[in-house]
Amino acid sequence: MRVIGIDPGTAITGYGIIDLEGNRLSVVAYDCITTQPTMSMPSRLQHLYRQLEMVLRHYRPRQFAVEELFFQKNVRTALAVGQARGVAILAAVNAGLAVAEYTPLQVKQAVVGYGRAAKEQVQYMVRALLGLPEVPRPDDVADALAVAICHAHYLQSAARIRGETRG
Amino acid sequence: MRVIGIDPGTAITGYGIIDLEGNRLSVVAYDCITTQPTMSMPSRLQHLYRQLEMVLRHYRPRQFAVEELFFQKNVRTALAVGQARGVAILAAVNAGLAVAEYTPLQVKQAVVGYGRAAKEQVQYMVRALLGLPEVPRPDDVADALAVAICHAHYLQSAARIRGETRG
Repeated sequence: MRVIGIDPGTAITGYGIIDLEGNRLSVVAYDCITTQPTMSMPSRLQHLYRQLEMVLRHYRPRQFAVEELFFQKNVRTALAVGQARGVAILAAVNAGLAVAEYTPLQVKQAVVGYGRAAKEQVQYMVRALLGLPEVPRPDDVADALAVAICHAHYLQSAARIRGETRG
Repeated sequence: MRVIGIDPGTAITGYGIIDLEGNRLSVVAYDCITTQPTMSMPSRLQHLYRQLEMVLRHYRPRQFAVEELFFQKNVRTALAVGQARGVAILAAVNAGLAVAEYTPLQVKQAVVGYGRAAKEQVQYMVRALLGLPEVPRPDDVADALAVAICHAHYLQSAARIRGETRG
């Protein structure tokens, strides 16, 4: 099962794609989609949508995971992040993917085993769990991989409940 | 010049389409796109996008106007509105429309002539300027028509500056 995790933003949208086979996680790709502040906001949203469409078409994940983001600094930031998030989710649902949402607490719990873990601990565990040479940069990419891992854990648990795992 | 104004939201997105010929405004259509709370958030965003695509294809406006919404009650509302707003703007830019944004102050100034006008005054003037039999309901539709009128006024001023108006 191939999962894409996303950390959406107008300037930087991180994405991380992982494969889950039985109990084994492996990394497929991770990068970010960036837009320039000189672009108009509609153009930035369109660029994000198109680039994400290309990523989904190229890697063909079947599941899409994104963090719930009710913890923005302020209303202005929340609106901007909301716009990027809406466009990213639209790209996923238009590509026929299942969309899952997790709170930051759930992501930390799944990746570190502790809901109040620091950002550095999450990044360390993302690197370790996926056997990466170093922590992915920028933070948005590491965060995207973290939410993908969280969703993979959820899928593993769901499969275990259905008695389908061989691990 | 045909203008569509939008008041985006996950549950209700109002739209209003008007024609501007010289100094004359006329209403083409106004209605709202609604989604049910029982639908998943990704499905609601997809429904909004598709319905708006249909509206744009049917009425073929050339200009798209939306309010800047930095005045939401809280971060949770701002995120939800941001998602719907991002999807609506994407539909516009994907249909090749020019996107304009106005603050609530600019909209009230353009429609009522007074930036601190009450909601009822804006609705009264929307009805009067467009010669409607009654104030459009729900509020989202009246708000969408108000931002369309605001943009039409801007286009009139811009044309006047270019010396193109005959009025």
